Amino acid sequence: MLSNTNRTEIKKGAHKAVYDVSKLHAIIDESLIAHVAITNESGPVVIPMLAWRVDDYVYIHGANNSRLLRSLKQGVQTCLTFTLFDGWVLARSAFHHSAHYRSAVVFGQFEMVENNQEKDRLLNHFIEQIAPGRTKQVRLSNEKELKATMLLRIPLTEASVKISNFGVNDDAEDMDIAVWAGVLPYRTVVGPLQACDDLYEGIAEPDYRSAYSNRWQE
Amino acid sequence: MLSNTNRTEIKKGAHKAVYDVSKLHAIIDESLIAHVAITNESGPVVIPMLAWRVDDYVYIHGANNSRLLRSLKQGVQTCLTFTLFDGWVLARSAFHHSAHYRSAVVFGQFEMVENNQEKDRLLNHFIEQIAPGRTKQVRLSNEKELKATMLLRIPLTEASVKISNFGVNDDAEDMDIAVWAGVLPYRTVVGPLQACDDLYEGIAEPDYRSAYSNRWQE
Repeated sequence: MLSNTNRTEIKKGAHKAVYDVSKLHAIIDESLIAHVAITNESGPVVIPMLAWRVDDYVYIHGANNSRLLRSLKQGVQTCLTFTLFDGWVLARSAFHHSAHYRSAVVFGQFEMVENNQEKDRLLNHFIEQIAPGRTKQVRLSNEKELKATMLLRIPLTEASVKISNFGVNDDAEDMDIAVWAGVLPYRTVVGPLQACDDLYEGIAEPDYRSAYSNRWQE
Repeated sequence: MLSNTNRTEIKKGAHKAVYDVSKLHAIIDESLIAHVAITNESGPVVIPMLAWRVDDYVYIHGANNSRLLRSLKQGVQTCLTFTLFDGWVLARSAFHHSAHYRSAVVFGQFEMVENNQEKDRLLNHFIEQIAPGRTKQVRLSNEKELKATMLLRIPLTEASVKISNFGVNDDAEDMDIAVWAGVLPYRTVVGPLQACDDLYEGIAEPDYRSAYSNRWQE
């Protein structure tokens, strides 16, 4: 169960708040994109980052000389937001138009993962998540590459989840207006694979659809 | 042309920087979701908001009593980021795995649009963008609803755009590894419409596909 702190308590649209940790995990795992913020002398900055979860931590990585990562590794306060957009709610009144979405907001501080072996394991975890079996085939990272990569993690200890999937909510007096009402759904589809021009001769196309359940497109 | 400021100059991956204003507009118009940040006493907070563009401004709206909007209307420094994720780049080495994406980062301060007639026009612009022709059919907002809605705008004067679509970039010495390499594309599809159970009898399904060009799914 997620518990409320000053930062995570949802006041607007409280009926959309969800406290089930498995929902938090599912949003992070499906999104894999975090909008990560830090505050510098000019104000807040929001950068999209690849982000993946292993157990109760979220990991981000990048080059050692990235300005954002160098700030984050110092343990400054940060906020990571994951959003999946599911569609438009088309109501009978302009006022009640809204959206279906699932979002998760995580607060806290990053810390650096320094051990190269541990970095290798966690970076490979990410590749396996997007392309199962792939780390058995590619050239794995060498010491120099691991040293050039910064890996940071943040614990999922302070987070809130909001899910909006309630359909159309019209005022009673608008129900007789002769206009179509309902939902215009959005869906992310994945695939099919697009091979390099200079592919190794005779290599078979791998099958990664198991990672994308009903999102895979032939 | 977008010009560099201290906040918008792209230092990492400078080859991905794009200075064409039409690309900035296209990312905002396709995304319609901004990750909006403010900084409060505990650090930065990032909230996903519906956001749409009319000419050289981006608009967001919400309830008058929203904490986020109440902070933003005071003109605090903010950052809005729009991200479209286009797929995974699967390289021959673990190290060169990366992503295709298009993102835009906007800095500045919001200001409030106070005139109800102007608010009505700009809110209806958004509905027309997601569902062309719809504002001729729905009940338009009344004075009370417009008063309860806060509409804020930010000028697109300080923004940066990054586009990563370069395909696989492997080291020369890895080209003979017998592994598949290429791109695993992501795509957002829209539709088909899902009608309410209590739809007005005999109402025809509207055709909104013109707003979604090649993203519409039958």
